[in-house]
Amino acid sequence: MTQTATSRPRASEAERLARATISIVAEPGDYTFLGLTSELGALRFLEALQEHPDHHHQLRAAAARLESVDAERELDRAESLGIRFVVPGDAEWPTQLEELHAAGTVQERGGTPVGLWVRGPLRLDRLTGSLAVVGSRSSTTYGDRVAGDLAAVVGEAGRAVISGGAFGIDYAAHRGALSVGAVTVAVLACGADRIYPTAHRDLLRHLGRHYAVISEAPPGASPFRVRFLARNRIIAALARGTVVVEAAARSGALNTSNWAQRLNRVVMGTPGPLTSVASVGVHQLIRSGAASLVTGGPDVLELLGAAGEHLVEEPRGPERPRDALPVRRRQVLDAVPVSEPASTASVALVAGLGVVEVHQVLVRLEEGGLVEQVRTGWRLTERGRE
Amino acid sequence: MTQTATSRPRASEAERLARATISIVAEPGDYTFLGLTSELGALRFLEALQEHPDHHHQLRAAAARLESVDAERELDRAESLGIRFVVPGDAEWPTQLEELHAAGTVQERGGTPVGLWVRGPLRLDRLTGSLAVVGSRSSTTYGDRVAGDLAAVVGEAGRAVISGGAFGIDYAAHRGALSVGAVTVAVLACGADRIYPTAHRDLLRHLGRHYAVISEAPPGASPFRVRFLARNRIIAALARGTVVVEAAARSGALNTSNWAQRLNRVVMGTPGPLTSVASVGVHQLIRSGAASLVTGGPDVLELLGAAGEHLVEEPRGPERPRDALPVRRRQVLDAVPVSEPASTASVALVAGLGVVEVHQVLVRLEEGGLVEQVRTGWRLTERGRE
Repeated sequence: MTQTATSRPRASEAERLARATISIVAEPGDYTFLGLTSELGALRFLEALQEHPDHHHQLRAAAARLESVDAERELDRAESLGIRFVVPGDAEWPTQLEELHAAGTVQERGGTPVGLWVRGPLRLDRLTGSLAVVGSRSSTTYGDRVAGDLAAVVGEAGRAVISGGAFGIDYAAHRGALSVGAVTVAVLACGADRIYPTAHRDLLRHLGRHYAVISEAPPGASPFRVRFLARNRIIAALARGTVVVEAAARSGALNTSNWAQRLNRVVMGTPGPLTSVASVGVHQLIRSGAASLVTGGPDVLELLGAAGEHLVEEPRGPERPRDALPVRRRQVLDAVPVSEPASTASVALVAGLGVVEVHQVLVRLEEGGLVEQVRTGWRLTERGRE
Repeated sequence: MTQTATSRPRASEAERLARATISIVAEPGDYTFLGLTSELGALRFLEALQEHPDHHHQLRAAAARLESVDAERELDRAESLGIRFVVPGDAEWPTQLEELHAAGTVQERGGTPVGLWVRGPLRLDRLTGSLAVVGSRSSTTYGDRVAGDLAAVVGEAGRAVISGGAFGIDYAAHRGALSVGAVTVAVLACGADRIYPTAHRDLLRHLGRHYAVISEAPPGASPFRVRFLARNRIIAALARGTVVVEAAARSGALNTSNWAQRLNRVVMGTPGPLTSVASVGVHQLIRSGAASLVTGGPDVLELLGAAGEHLVEEPRGPERPRDALPVRRRQVLDAVPVSEPASTASVALVAGLGVVEVHQVLVRLEEGGLVEQVRTGWRLTERGRE
């Protein structure tokens, strides 16, 4: 069912305006607003808010602000900034976000966003099956490398990489995906027009030009702490799985993985040295069973994919000479001492085989360079010891 | 039921001689011999071997050798080397080894040993609840540190540390235990009188003098490859749990953990950098669910201990100033922008609280050094951002 740009279904303009209004008056992740919008619908909720503004102090404050909101003008202003407001009903709406409605709240934040403000050409339904890469802002060189490699492998396999545009692991993940020309998007806690952190101006510009910078908060919104918590749930919900690369004991990345777990997404973690505080939170996740240990992109693809889609080949050590031997010869080889030479009879005894047969096999093994005969008997060569 | 040295139960001398005979003619872990000994008893098996030596070429060879074996003399010779032969029926016999009888074979090795040759004063029943620490011979500095620290913590908690006396992780584990004066024993693939590897002469002497050097193979036996495989099952079976610290993809340490798994022991692994080949095998074990990730001695003690015996405290990040605040103040703090200042009204809107109340709280937060008022409004201080 491919649809051309013009025939794509779109939400009604009234619906979009109502949702923009709510997005502007309500805080991201405010479950009172979002839950009621999901339950009543945006238009009915707004009506209710205007008719009965005295339910709750939060709603009262919002109702008071409603009068000053001109959603149409805000949408126009957003458009002039290159930002569109994507809502349920739009063809590109990432329906996986609906699962947030029943996923409860974490630190008082939760609910399906009323819409997402998007800067950039990427359609949000392209994020189906994507991977979120999250982790410490104060990552180590090791963590950056792991995140970058992993994002590159997953991105190259055609899956989008979602992160938060922050310092550390986020940055390494975006960069890793970009290094192979893969799709990557940043979900921000501030408005999609804002550059935060400012040091990531180039990255965020690039994402906005080629992919997408996404926010639940309207253009102009500042990066408050609560908005980071709200933002984390959007990252977890958009992606099919979240991998935590480095996280100290109380890292915000653990908030994201917590959401991913609640949403029955695939939760993964990459281990690191036990001596690194940057890995403590990840080890804790794996140890508690909340996250699966992954060792790189192939593992991640296996867990993200449908069963059998990406089967990881178990790593094998290098092929050793003895592996190529027939069973009988291996049996004899295994009976030859590592250090002091042994007689053929002694080797035969250990191997549980006849002396004549063992002697024949030893000669063949000597030809293969695996054993050598010295004055006092047979012993393994360097090659035979491998 | 404490027993003095003189009243300790002992196996009969006939039984000990029969088992010593089998130990001398059979290879360690030869399931044909060990299985039949477990099923028939040592004396009956020897009778059967002498009466019907033509069952099997292995048994035939053993029966032929029986005539030249003088077990009594071998036991005397062992005693002169400070080695005793511990068999079922002895008070110190580690009964957990009996579980090997039903645990099948791995690479053709298996079965309960007919006895263990022991050099050193430690009673083998002291190994109940012990930990096996195994890993790569070509370990990294990181792995050595992890193994040593872990052995020290577990040893200090009163649990014996078992390893194989080899280079790398084995050595680090023995050393770690010794560093805190804890009990540690080496189980060798060669005779307990042998020094292998020779570079570990001091270590093995020390263990033999103060603790124990143990082998299934009789004194004088050489370190064949098959004997390492047989030895690994003894390590796994003696210990309540096995931790693999570093192991490449085909490390022998994985053979030990395989045995531990078959024996329903606790199987653990310590993660390392994904960039280290020395950790590939361990990550594979954890990923496959065969081993639990442990981050150090406390984790190991928790898994080894009876439920609730050693409860690990989840690592917590440092206490942040906001954690100490009452809910209402935290709510306001969370609504103060990270970067650009916001008016009291704007903070109130985000917090969902009344302006007057918010202003009062902001003043308190300012007193606490968490926010500051500048010309254009309120913003977080360094401390408030923590």
